[in-house]
Amino acid sequence: MNQTDSINQSEPDAKIRLRLWLRLLKASRSIESVIRENLRTQFATTLPRFDVMSALSRYDKGLKMSALSGVLKVSNGNVTGIVDRLVQDGLAIRVPVAGDRRAHLARLTKKGSDEFAVQAAAHEGWINDLLSGFDADTAAALCAHLDTAAPATDET
Amino acid sequence: MNQTDSINQSEPDAKIRLRLWLRLLKASRSIESVIRENLRTQFATTLPRFDVMSALSRYDKGLKMSALSGVLKVSNGNVTGIVDRLVQDGLAIRVPVAGDRRAHLARLTKKGSDEFAVQAAAHEGWINDLLSGFDADTAAALCAHLDTAAPATDET
Repeated sequence: MNQTDSINQSEPDAKIRLRLWLRLLKASRSIESVIRENLRTQFATTLPRFDVMSALSRYDKGLKMSALSGVLKVSNGNVTGIVDRLVQDGLAIRVPVAGDRRAHLARLTKKGSDEFAVQAAAHEGWINDLLSGFDADTAAALCAHLDTAAPATDET
Repeated sequence: MNQTDSINQSEPDAKIRLRLWLRLLKASRSIESVIRENLRTQFATTLPRFDVMSALSRYDKGLKMSALSGVLKVSNGNVTGIVDRLVQDGLAIRVPVAGDRRAHLARLTKKGSDEFAVQAAAHEGWINDLLSGFDADTAAALCAHLDTAAPATDET
């Protein structure tokens, strides 16, 4: 009886967490799919390109290509190719690193910075709509919970 | 002043939801990456293959290839190739559909069903560990919330 009891007690928790995982996966995939589609139709851009511009926008002085690669683990983009295109489009420039002749920083131009600001505002609006079912208190509580409860295995 | 007030009030909600989205994305990606790694090292299998077996395991009588493709939108696998390998490995069979000479169902064999049961139990255990920071009540509440609040755009 004791054994049965402990199985009955531990079983539901695992099942509930499995259900939570499937729900989280489904929600994040469906949101990501909307974002990719919106970026494509409204800005003729891609999620990896948006992610690169987002990373660059946080570093006024530029970011080394190696640091950018870390950022892009997330969207599996080809960082070098993306930066090449941004440079061609006048949205970014490459600048030499003082004291290291082989290293370069990538940095947004004024034009790139302005363009990203428009995209980022739209992106924030899409997310705000997509997650409108979460009121601010619930969203904040869930953020805090994810920070402490969910693993962060791919942080380096 | 009224305009400023309304901007100040609406701004934080959007920012909090954006933060929630980034947390959700990070959590689901890091969990998925652990799952892929565990499937590889412990069962020499892949997530798309696991997903196909999971879908087949829910249909004793077999599942049409077209229905399987819907399932696999999720993990972007090549359904035909995966089923071919499962058949080669004796884990699945293809059976003709009565009344439709061109259609086939895929179905797990006894061996496939037994092998998947072992993998599914391990998978449930990994998720249970990875999400152990969510107690059952919190997890159940979040599931319910995701069902009502998150979009389900890729359901067909």
